[in-house]
Amino acid sequence: MNYLAKIRENKPLIYNIMNEVASNFSTNGLIALGASVSVSNTPKEAEEIGKNSKAVVLNLGTLSEERAEALLLAGKAANKAGIPVILDPIAVGATTFRTKVIYEILSTIKLAAICANAGEIAVLGDALEKTTSPDSSIEENNPAIAKKVAKKYETIVIATGEVDVITDGIQTTLCRNGHTMLQNITASGCLLTSVIGAFISVAGNSMYEASVEATAGYGIAAERAMQKAYGPGMFVPRFLDELYFLNNEVINTQKKLEKYQA
Amino acid sequence: MNYLAKIRENKPLIYNIMNEVASNFSTNGLIALGASVSVSNTPKEAEEIGKNSKAVVLNLGTLSEERAEALLLAGKAANKAGIPVILDPIAVGATTFRTKVIYEILSTIKLAAICANAGEIAVLGDALEKTTSPDSSIEENNPAIAKKVAKKYETIVIATGEVDVITDGIQTTLCRNGHTMLQNITASGCLLTSVIGAFISVAGNSMYEASVEATAGYGIAAERAMQKAYGPGMFVPRFLDELYFLNNEVINTQKKLEKYQA
Amino acid sequence: MNYLAKIRENKPLIYNIMNEVASNFSTNGLIALGASVSVSNTPKEAEEIGKNSKAVVLNLGTLSEERAEALLLAGKAANKAGIPVILDPIAVGATTFRTKVIYEILSTIKLAAICANAGEIAVLGDALEKTTSPDSSIEENNPAIAKKVAKKYETIVIATGEVDVITDGIQTTLCRNGHTMLQNITASGCLLTSVIGAFISVAGNSMYEASVEATAGYGIAAERAMQKAYGPGMFVPRFLDELYFLNNEVINTQKKLEKYQA
Repeated sequence: MNYLAKIRENKPLIYNIMNEVASNFSTNGLIALGASVSVSNTPKEAEEIGKNSKAVVLNLGTLSEERAEALLLAGKAANKAGIPVILDPIAVGATTFRTKVIYEILSTIKLAAICANAGEIAVLGDALEKTTSPDSSIEENNPAIAKKVAKKYETIVIATGEVDVITDGIQTTLCRNGHTMLQNITASGCLLTSVIGAFISVAGNSMYEASVEATAGYGIAAERAMQKAYGPGMFVPRFLDELYFLNNEVINTQKKLEKYQA
Repeated sequence: MNYLAKIRENKPLIYNIMNEVASNFSTNGLIALGASVSVSNTPKEAEEIGKNSKAVVLNLGTLSEERAEALLLAGKAANKAGIPVILDPIAVGATTFRTKVIYEILSTIKLAAICANAGEIAVLGDALEKTTSPDSSIEENNPAIAKKVAKKYETIVIATGEVDVITDGIQTTLCRNGHTMLQNITASGCLLTSVIGAFISVAGNSMYEASVEATAGYGIAAERAMQKAYGPGMFVPRFLDELYFLNNEVINTQKKLEKYQA
Repeated sequence: MNYLAKIRENKPLIYNIMNEVASNFSTNGLIALGASVSVSNTPKEAEEIGKNSKAVVLNLGTLSEERAEALLLAGKAANKAGIPVILDPIAVGATTFRTKVIYEILSTIKLAAICANAGEIAVLGDALEKTTSPDSSIEENNPAIAKKVAKKYETIVIATGEVDVITDGIQTTLCRNGHTMLQNITASGCLLTSVIGAFISVAGNSMYEASVEATAGYGIAAERAMQKAYGPGMFVPRFLDELYFLNNEVINTQKKLEKYQA
């Protein structure tokens, strides 16, 4: 399916409960891709926007009690309305409060996908105690752990690392697109989660395929951006440009995907 | 009047109650233009900063109960001190809470100007029920609706669209400057509202002329930025550069303004 | 000491309680430099992150009652754990609330360094009543006032201006690196404070030397960025690039430091 074409045609409204650090970058990234965005972090609007959007992205950065309440209300409203919910469990394990909120989301909201770095997925899979910062990552991205998390929460898992792992617990794909410069900027994981949300919002029952395509497309845009950038500063605007010009043909030609068997 | 020269000479303090998504971009845009900026979103400071600034910009993005209180306090303090207040009623109609706060502002605070996209102005003019997202817009920008809103609230209205409409309810100007790339980035309306605030802050009784000039200047900066940019990513820094280098001569040479008669 | 090499080797976690305007820029700046970053502004996490980080940066922008509480909790937890605390007293004097919170921090938390513009340092040194905006500055950067503040609070003071002053109350260094374009963007002081935090976090007992080196390195990166930038818009990504490529050799070759005797 040409997910990108569908995003640009339908301009699905992605509801981002988004942290303060990532909000500008992730909004610009989604608009560059062709989606519409609403960013609102208050419990006073969470249910109403949640049920009127095409996907709800729950981002745990710059958490507060107010945001925690909004995350739960938005997720539950989306569940009730049959709208896909995507979770970015930023820095799970780093603090008691954060970890508690993340597990409350996991136990009360049905997720379409969890998108996080390998370290955070390892925490969710009980293979690591905690992550130290949203930008930390571990070297090895173990597909077995991602599968375990996917099975446990009956969801798609996108675990990012040197090689990205996408799994629904049954099928698993490895993606070798991307560029290490993504680790030298903040919020690259936040925007990927939002992009996964946009692809899933137009995917119908092909949410797994959409997640694979989104991950590859995101990585390809990063590769192309680095052909024009110098360091992490110029990488950001170049990357947004490449998301804007990304299309299905480029993805099909440049994607580096591999089915994983274990 | 050379409003830009006055901004650069006086460096008026613009008090922005500004959403999380737009705060960096709109602050950088105002500084590039030559103004000073204070961003504060707490009721604990709203009255004090409000009465000590040269213009107060009320932006409704990433609203919360706390921000709603700050918006009302700042607006009222500015009214009392005779300082112009400019409203950006982001996504009016999208949620009950947001809409209620916006109409409370409209009914209790005297506004110098309302700056919003055509869809939001249509909601305020009872011609449309709601807007779906801050980045949505409608194709037609009806001057008659903008005039109706201007008359109802006795204020200047700047309604942005393919053609921008500036009206004080009596005089109406159409502005054909600008670039569609402004729709592919977030917060372009937020920054425009702040820029209108900066122009109005040095305009004395010529607030309508200042609003026309600001709208044209903003559009011209966008046109010039796209001569050097590629996509929406590089457009942002190029646009800030052009606001910094914008001057009266460039505006006078490149403005595309037309008086509207109806 | 090669502080930059140590930052890149150890990737110290800098805990930023950071304002909404500066959070993306300062996080990207710290990552570009080689540090890890955690941004959290809630009292629910402040003590836990505070005691587990390598430096705590208290930034007063976009203050709220919640942030004020987080600032105090994080600072006290860091003090207890022997972790250096760096304060950026943004716009001290501008409002009653802000000023009260800043003096509460100053009277209850032991600071490793205060980093602020000359105007803010003058307020702390009782030489100026208030600053009007976070971007305002005064022309003269008086080393005697910076020394007075350093002695009073037994801390290092970095006062930025046309010439930067770094002092621990006994030794004083003037730094002539930097570029005026830093005054045409928002949050350049916020990021400098974070960078000071990163240098201090790896400095052991050489915190004064680390502060001097950080200030020079920051200024040098700005000078190099302007060789490739046009205006303030392009300056931002170019500056982040230069922080990423900055190294000890460049600092040693290009630093313009002078010991101040008075």
